[in-house]
Amino acid sequence: MELSTRIDAALAEAMQVGQGLSLSAEAVPQRLSATLDHAVMSGGARIRPTILLSVALACGDDRPGLADTAAAALELVHCASLVHDDLPAFDNAETRRGRPSVHRAFGEPLAILAGDSLIFLGFEMLTRGAGDCPDRALRMMRVLAQRSGMPGGICAGQGWESEPIVNLRAYHRAKTGALFIAATQMGALSAGQEAEPWEELGARIGEAFQVADDLKDALLPTEETGKPAGQDAAHGRPNAVAEMGVAGAMRHLKDILGGAIASIPACPGEAMLARMVRAYAERLTPVDLRARVAAAK
Amino acid sequence: MELSTRIDAALAEAMQVGQGLSLSAEAVPQRLSATLDHAVMSGGARIRPTILLSVALACGDDRPGLADTAAAALELVHCASLVHDDLPAFDNAETRRGRPSVHRAFGEPLAILAGDSLIFLGFEMLTRGAGDCPDRALRMMRVLAQRSGMPGGICAGQGWESEPIVNLRAYHRAKTGALFIAATQMGALSAGQEAEPWEELGARIGEAFQVADDLKDALLPTEETGKPAGQDAAHGRPNAVAEMGVAGAMRHLKDILGGAIASIPACPGEAMLARMVRAYAERLTPVDLRARVAAAK
Repeated sequence: MELSTRIDAALAEAMQVGQGLSLSAEAVPQRLSATLDHAVMSGGARIRPTILLSVALACGDDRPGLADTAAAALELVHCASLVHDDLPAFDNAETRRGRPSVHRAFGEPLAILAGDSLIFLGFEMLTRGAGDCPDRALRMMRVLAQRSGMPGGICAGQGWESEPIVNLRAYHRAKTGALFIAATQMGALSAGQEAEPWEELGARIGEAFQVADDLKDALLPTEETGKPAGQDAAHGRPNAVAEMGVAGAMRHLKDILGGAIASIPACPGEAMLARMVRAYAERLTPVDLRARVAAAK
Repeated sequence: MELSTRIDAALAEAMQVGQGLSLSAEAVPQRLSATLDHAVMSGGARIRPTILLSVALACGDDRPGLADTAAAALELVHCASLVHDDLPAFDNAETRRGRPSVHRAFGEPLAILAGDSLIFLGFEMLTRGAGDCPDRALRMMRVLAQRSGMPGGICAGQGWESEPIVNLRAYHRAKTGALFIAATQMGALSAGQEAEPWEELGARIGEAFQVADDLKDALLPTEETGKPAGQDAAHGRPNAVAEMGVAGAMRHLKDILGGAIASIPACPGEAMLARMVRAYAERLTPVDLRARVAAAK
């Protein structure tokens, strides 16, 4: 089965639970329910769950149901973080994925609640998906919680932006890297493997994503990214393009991806994973972006 | 050991983890770390974890470490909900527990992140506390997630306030009742008992709490509740005092507590739990409040 089919089905099942679709409509706050749908079912690239399932497959994927649930849980937490990051207190983004951001469409109260609800739903789905592997599920939940919260998860990453002095390494690793590390580690855990050897691959994919995002933020107009352009410069956030220029950032991205491929632990699906990272690199740097970089040289 | 001692120790352990106190200071965003402390260590009454541990004790408390962790996790989620509820998008509360609310003290971005981080920390602590009972831990996490998120948890409860038509029963049950149900059910589960028979006790304590809170909101000044007075009337929220008057609300409160005591499932600590509910009733209606009600009659 295509990974995207598995991810879509797992997310649909999660929405069924979170939106209370099996309950009578008057038992469920319908606007908040619609907000969850808007936050999750808006055509995201599903990069993190794709990586999670790719690693699970590379490790044998002996509990595909558990892997699917983990993929959905990770994407729900990622969507929650996007909803909260878009709030006026942070990016004040008007659009996301080419549609109005959640708070623009539904107001701030429901956006805050949607983020919170999606976090809880992610953990609920993992308790439901545990099946005959409660220990695996618990280890995955610990990874998800640690890579999302404090002191080293995406919340910490966002928190660094409120510090007078920023530890740039900790900032990037937490803000962008953490959920990619969760992806590789949860994928391995779902198939009964250890988490630790998979940390570096996740961290490097996260770094690559950050640099590619910096390139897109600097070079592409809003219509193509689906979110406001030039946000890094506008908010004075550190970014690779400001540090090393467009061509330098592009070289740096290639180096990181080379390191990512070299870091893949020995496993049955090693070659398949290397192909995935290469395909992922193409996806991170669309043809149009590469042409612009060539023109800018 | 006193329940409050157990709860304090479990929360201190959770803060150790969430604030990254074992890491070097420069690896952790210190302002967000301080925000977590402000949100949790502000002298709350710890009612929900006290109920959780009381039920655990009544059921034999054969895994006290797991019960303690559950008590901390529940309180962390409760504190998270308070931080988010106080935000300008909701109550816009300036004070909480007699101190500045989190967003007043640290700003909105860190308040939003603190709430999110505390949710993740609650689940992380439960994965750490599972020990030799992964199945019990998973069931407790499912209860915690369901009673916190959508479609029936405290997020749903808050969400009802954004609906054009409010289902009052679902609203109250979700907004105030849900975490009390989590308290009784997680207490029972921590000691290896079934959750279901404990739902009614939690729901009734939650109802009692709601009515007592409505009485306090209507009758007590800000200095005594530690939060702004008259918020229900100011926000046009449904409340028992508006519906049945002060004396009627007081009678209703007594009836609910009688029902709560009657609903306690047969267990070794049944009599002890009944005493706890009575003591809790005293606490819900401080002498001063009772005197005011007598004067208002």
